[in-house]
Amino acid sequence: MIPTLTAFDASPDRGRGLARDTRVRWALEEVGQPYEVRYLSFAELKKPAHRALQPFGQIPTYEEGDLALWETGAIVLHIAETHAGLLPKDRNARARTIAWMFAAVSSVEPWILEIESTHFHDRGQAWGADRLAQAENRLRVRLDDLDRALGDKDWLMGEFTAADILICSVLLRVRGEPVLDERPRLAAYLARGEARPAYQRSFAAQLAHYQLRQAAKS
Amino acid sequence: MIPTLTAFDASPDRGRGLARDTRVRWALEEVGQPYEVRYLSFAELKKPAHRALQPFGQIPTYEEGDLALWETGAIVLHIAETHAGLLPKDRNARARTIAWMFAAVSSVEPWILEIESTHFHDRGQAWGADRLAQAENRLRVRLDDLDRALGDKDWLMGEFTAADILICSVLLRVRGEPVLDERPRLAAYLARGEARPAYQRSFAAQLAHYQLRQAAKS
Repeated sequence: MIPTLTAFDASPDRGRGLARDTRVRWALEEVGQPYEVRYLSFAELKKPAHRALQPFGQIPTYEEGDLALWETGAIVLHIAETHAGLLPKDRNARARTIAWMFAAVSSVEPWILEIESTHFHDRGQAWGADRLAQAENRLRVRLDDLDRALGDKDWLMGEFTAADILICSVLLRVRGEPVLDERPRLAAYLARGEARPAYQRSFAAQLAHYQLRQAAKS
Repeated sequence: MIPTLTAFDASPDRGRGLARDTRVRWALEEVGQPYEVRYLSFAELKKPAHRALQPFGQIPTYEEGDLALWETGAIVLHIAETHAGLLPKDRNARARTIAWMFAAVSSVEPWILEIESTHFHDRGQAWGADRLAQAENRLRVRLDDLDRALGDKDWLMGEFTAADILICSVLLRVRGEPVLDERPRLAAYLARGEARPAYQRSFAAQLAHYQLRQAAKS
């Protein structure tokens, strides 16, 4: 059964692939599962029809037959549970992979989003620069922890798993920034993730829609 | 096999039950699984022995035989997967329960923690009050979404699940505050969670350790 995702019709990041549908596309590409995409305007996101699928009026959602799912972590876990290749077979390694999946969205991403939020909400405010320095220092501590946990492994669990999809997707938010480049092992880890053909296809697919939409406007 | 958790030896919330070990205790109490607790000082949290269990040097961890797990969401999910009573049997309902578990720690809790972080880091700064008002407004929008999704149900999935453990645990951070009390359905939902005997036992257990430690000091 071909699942359907939702994504931004006009991605606010201008096709940089940071919208969370890219994570789900990546997981689907890794397991070779074709999918369809329903693109939504910002107005449609907040309407009752979409909120019935996604309580917070966000993207992505995932519909597959009579299953309607949301929260990127849960969608990627569902894909990993129903296809081979993204979760270790060993019971303990599987549980630890899921720990990294929760860590990605609850213990790493919020520290990066706090910086984005400071840029956005505090722009032009007197406190902007101080808040930003605070938030960056907290993120550095967290990335040092992540760097230490990765060590010299190629992937967090040794083999590539769904955990790498989520952790790499979170790190993409600071791609090319000093906070990542000062940690060469983490930067190389992210580069390995980006080099995967499945990631390349997911990135290209979201960019293609953005470019199509831009072309239609001009 | 009796699992062992880690918890703060001296909980920074003075026994209010907000440290994340309470969530794991609650899940274990719901399924009737006895457990042991290893209490750690703040210094021990940051040592290599603990970081080998928890990359970010935090509590709780969960050790059960040769499984060592971390991230509260992953621990509660593991407990729910290995005991009856916290995950619906229906495949789709199970997946949606996991979506709410991810939502608790990645789509609701960060908005509450941002307020706590503003209280802590911006105390006495010129921007403190403005930042706080911004963060509270963002949290109100999110709680309205949650309130709408809960509707008139007793629990998020109808029946009580692991999702309610995590969402209620997150809401406990704003228990008794206007942002929660202005939403009577959510406040009543949290009160239902707190009234569960399993929650009461988990709360009492963490408080007992705090009181024991205070008594030892005096």
